[in-house]
Amino acid sequence: MPIQQQERPFDLLNRVIGQQVLVRLKNNVSVRGKITSFDAHMNLVMESAEELNDGELKAKLGTILLRGGNIIFVSPV
Amino acid sequence: MPIQQQERPFDLLNRVIGQQVLVRLKNNVSVRGKITSFDAHMNLVMESAEELNDGELKAKLGTILLRGGNIIFVSPV
Amino acid sequence: MPIQQQERPFDLLNRVIGQQVLVRLKNNVSVRGKITSFDAHMNLVMESAEELNDGELKAKLGTILLRGGNIIFVSPV
Amino acid sequence: MPIQQQERPFDLLNRVIGQQVLVRLKNNVSVRGKITSFDAHMNLVMESAEELNDGELKAKLGTILLRGGNIIFVSPV
Amino acid sequence: MPIQQQERPFDLLNRVIGQQVLVRLKNNVSVRGKITSFDAHMNLVMESAEELNDGELKAKLGTILLRGGNIIFVSPV
Amino acid sequence: MPIQQQERPFDLLNRVIGQQVLVRLKNNVSVRGKITSFDAHMNLVMESAEELNDGELKAKLGTILLRGGNIIFVSPV
Amino acid sequence: MPIQQQERPFDLLNRVIGQQVLVRLKNNVSVRGKITSFDAHMNLVMESAEELNDGELKAKLGTILLRGGNIIFVSPV
Repeated sequence: MPIQQQERPFDLLNRVIGQQVLVRLKNNVSVRGKITSFDAHMNLVMESAEELNDGELKAKLGTILLRGGNIIFVSPV
Repeated sequence: MPIQQQERPFDLLNRVIGQQVLVRLKNNVSVRGKITSFDAHMNLVMESAEELNDGELKAKLGTILLRGGNIIFVSPV
Repeated sequence: MPIQQQERPFDLLNRVIGQQVLVRLKNNVSVRGKITSFDAHMNLVMESAEELNDGELKAKLGTILLRGGNIIFVSPV
Repeated sequence: MPIQQQERPFDLLNRVIGQQVLVRLKNNVSVRGKITSFDAHMNLVMESAEELNDGELKAKLGTILLRGGNIIFVSPV
Repeated sequence: MPIQQQERPFDLLNRVIGQQVLVRLKNNVSVRGKITSFDAHMNLVMESAEELNDGELKAKLGTILLRGGNIIFVSPV
Repeated sequence: MPIQQQERPFDLLNRVIGQQVLVRLKNNVSVRGKITSFDAHMNLVMESAEELNDGELKAKLGTILLRGGNIIFVSPV
Repeated sequence: MPIQQQERPFDLLNRVIGQQVLVRLKNNVSVRGKITSFDAHMNLVMESAEELNDGELKAKLGTILLRGGNIIFVSPV
């Protein structure tokens, strides 16, 4: 008997509002920061965002509005 | 006479909730982990996710929300 | 006088449910296996799927849910 | 005074059902075969399809369902 | 005070039905021929179409149905 | 208190109808010319259009219908 | 207990109307300027826009209408 899923993928975003996440983007760039809002396109606002390259800090970005279409995955850290 | 299909592709996802899957992505990366939720865009939440490169462990990702648009295929393992 | 088409492209998929097909993907990969279901986005479930590279077996994939957006063509074999 | 167009692009497809066409795809591949059906996404079924590379036969594909999104143009031959 | 635009972009296509146009495509290819029909996706039927490479004739294509999604621009010649 | 925006992006296009604009495209090409019409997809008709490469004139294009999907930005000049 | 998000991503754009922002684009280009309007596709009008390459000024663009589809992120500066 199939297990009924208790939640949907976007519930994860709702649960991590105000927390640190790592976002992997399509162009081999990752961004780490505190997620403060999201919408149905997976557009995200992140605060104190940092751009990472192979785990190394590349640039401090501050507050950013990130387009969902560029995202591969979002992971709470 | 054509055989009537008994289920639709997303039924496979429903059946493997709570199980290990391998997800092949467009950028030559694979992710292995336990699928805990999905939606109609094939966005997936995976737990204890690991990034693989040619079958070798590249990084432990933990819990991730993976955008469906990057997926080539999902396979139960 | 134009010939009226008797069927639509997706009728082909319906006719080959339960049979072996070869699927050519955009990233120069082909997958061969038994198609067990499909939907309007051409998402497919295949069983005993094998990944092929220039006709050579590259990997046994087992059961997969393949996203329609990656497909160039599907061919009964 | 503008000439009123007598037909729409998809009327061409309707007119060539059952005939040989050449289909140029985005990945520098061409496919030649008999078109037997199409839909509004320009998905095509072709019979006795052959893959061509610079006009040379590369592979016999048999019957294929070709996704419209990969097509650059379709030409009756 | 802004000048009110008298026509919309697709009116240009309507005006050049039956005339020679040059179509620049995304894959560095151009096609020249007589446009005979178009639709809202900018799909075009062209007659006596010729494929050009840097202005040189590369291939005679005859009648083609060109998918609008590959077009960069259309220009009456 | 947030400043209420007085106009929307497409109002800029409306304001420059009949004027020279520079359009940067995705394939590293720029086009300069007089914009005469646009639609909701940012499809543009330009007159006396010129293709530029690093600011140098590459080709005189005359009147063109440019697909909006190829545009990075439009700038009045 | 999940924290309820107080605002949505586009509220950030509304809050920075009239201010300097940095926009990272997909083609490795960044644009800096004053944002004066936006729409639901994230199309932006920027004034006194400058194109940057690795933080160095590459070109003064003046007023531009930037297509949202090219944007990776927008950041107030």
